[in-house]
Amino acid sequence: MAEAPGGAPLAIICGGGSFPGAVADAVAARGRRPVMFGIKGWADPAVIGRFVHHWISLGQAGRFFRLAKAENCREVVFIGTVLRPPLTALRLDWHTIKLMPRVIRFFRGGDDTLLSGVAGVAESGGLRVVGVKDVAPELFVPKGVLGRRQPSPRDYGDIDRGLKLIATLGPFDVGQAAVVAAGHVIAVEAAEGTDYMLARIAELRGLGRVTAPAGVGVLVKAPKHGQDRRFDLPSIGPRTIELVSAAGLAGLAVTAGSTMIAEAEATIAAADREKIFMVGVREGDLGANTQ
Amino acid sequence: MAEAPGGAPLAIICGGGSFPGAVADAVAARGRRPVMFGIKGWADPAVIGRFVHHWISLGQAGRFFRLAKAENCREVVFIGTVLRPPLTALRLDWHTIKLMPRVIRFFRGGDDTLLSGVAGVAESGGLRVVGVKDVAPELFVPKGVLGRRQPSPRDYGDIDRGLKLIATLGPFDVGQAAVVAAGHVIAVEAAEGTDYMLARIAELRGLGRVTAPAGVGVLVKAPKHGQDRRFDLPSIGPRTIELVSAAGLAGLAVTAGSTMIAEAEATIAAADREKIFMVGVREGDLGANTQ
Repeated sequence: MAEAPGGAPLAIICGGGSFPGAVADAVAARGRRPVMFGIKGWADPAVIGRFVHHWISLGQAGRFFRLAKAENCREVVFIGTVLRPPLTALRLDWHTIKLMPRVIRFFRGGDDTLLSGVAGVAESGGLRVVGVKDVAPELFVPKGVLGRRQPSPRDYGDIDRGLKLIATLGPFDVGQAAVVAAGHVIAVEAAEGTDYMLARIAELRGLGRVTAPAGVGVLVKAPKHGQDRRFDLPSIGPRTIELVSAAGLAGLAVTAGSTMIAEAEATIAAADREKIFMVGVREGDLGANTQ
Repeated sequence: MAEAPGGAPLAIICGGGSFPGAVADAVAARGRRPVMFGIKGWADPAVIGRFVHHWISLGQAGRFFRLAKAENCREVVFIGTVLRPPLTALRLDWHTIKLMPRVIRFFRGGDDTLLSGVAGVAESGGLRVVGVKDVAPELFVPKGVLGRRQPSPRDYGDIDRGLKLIATLGPFDVGQAAVVAAGHVIAVEAAEGTDYMLARIAELRGLGRVTAPAGVGVLVKAPKHGQDRRFDLPSIGPRTIELVSAAGLAGLAVTAGSTMIAEAEATIAAADREKIFMVGVREGDLGANTQ
């Protein structure tokens, strides 16, 4: 079979959510054939069903390598949500068992260790791991304000504090997000994830535990310092806007070029409707933003 | 009236919870007369009603100074829970209005700023602010293991990581607690408080979002780096043990000499019953603990 103009078919290992479909559409639009490998229990059949696809289980590296080879894939990208499974929940095949000492090391480390480890396994199977940004750059938040609402100077102060906090937490391999309101850090994300953290802010407000008035405060999301940016990228979408609004915040700031945006038009429309600002920032040039 | 053997009567400004009563008992046991100033809306009438007491509102510094002077108090201690109120909720008297520029500064700062500011106001009124530890040292967790359960070497590793995380967060004036399980930071406390954070761990476990097995993981509580230790001390009690157990953790570590323990006997009995370890550690000599 002749190669497509965009190169050999691309293996896409798919976790949950809508991003796997968006990445596959972007890849196909460039004339390259996407081959979906849906992770059982995480990938959404409705999302991957629109493309050539196979189902795999986490831990079945051997089956994945055989299928990817049969499909003539030379590169692989990981996309979508995969919460860390308990080690005992994995169904292990022979290829994986040979890799067990390495796998156990991943599971003992934090997310970064796990993810870098997965890349190592893929590469040991002869596939090159590429980043989502290499194959679908249009799915990332650009620098600057998206939508109509502009952040205030106070908002930029909160953004700056949130970015510094997340950078400080880097060595602990924890959290990619925080909420800062009028200079106070009111939430730090760890295992709960961004949506859960935002729901907490709404609840704490109801209990009188967040005293910044409604319309003050910013969700700041940024990849962890030192994070392997081929995986586990922070992302936002229409649901994020709903939760930011319910939490009574002024808006959200994400690192430009490293945060994905799902359904960009719908997300921006939701932000405008809820009067939420949304800004792509680069760490290091916040001074310039506040001019 | 002659002074009691322990010196002039001690003014105790009382927030919520049982600690104001425990402090007053400890002070009285030393032969000094406690005079309770219950903060309306926070102090528990059943707790302060056992002692000579007055009711004050936050923001009514003038009334407090008049009453404290009439009671011959020369020193004041603050104890109990007072969540930060919204500035508009305060009933302000003239003495406070004169101090407004300062008060507004407290409310703009983080907790540390607020608390150091309150001390400054008390001292401007002619009272010396003393620490709970100066008047009731027996209410603090000592160094070493309390109860029967011993932490494992892995638990000490988690404790070490938690203490380092909290120290790192010091400059952000956030959080006095974190949960670490097998090296992973799974929760960081900010505005929600320790109890709420522990309830989250139990919930995340139910959702499969905490993959460390039950019985792995440690609650670590420590005063923020640079915190004014006269106020806002971390504390534990029987309820903490219940929540640590419900969160499926192995135990809890608190900084010795700076964490208060409510109802010590009941707390230790609860820990033994739930097979939860409880250890007082000093930052800096964890190496010695793991020997």
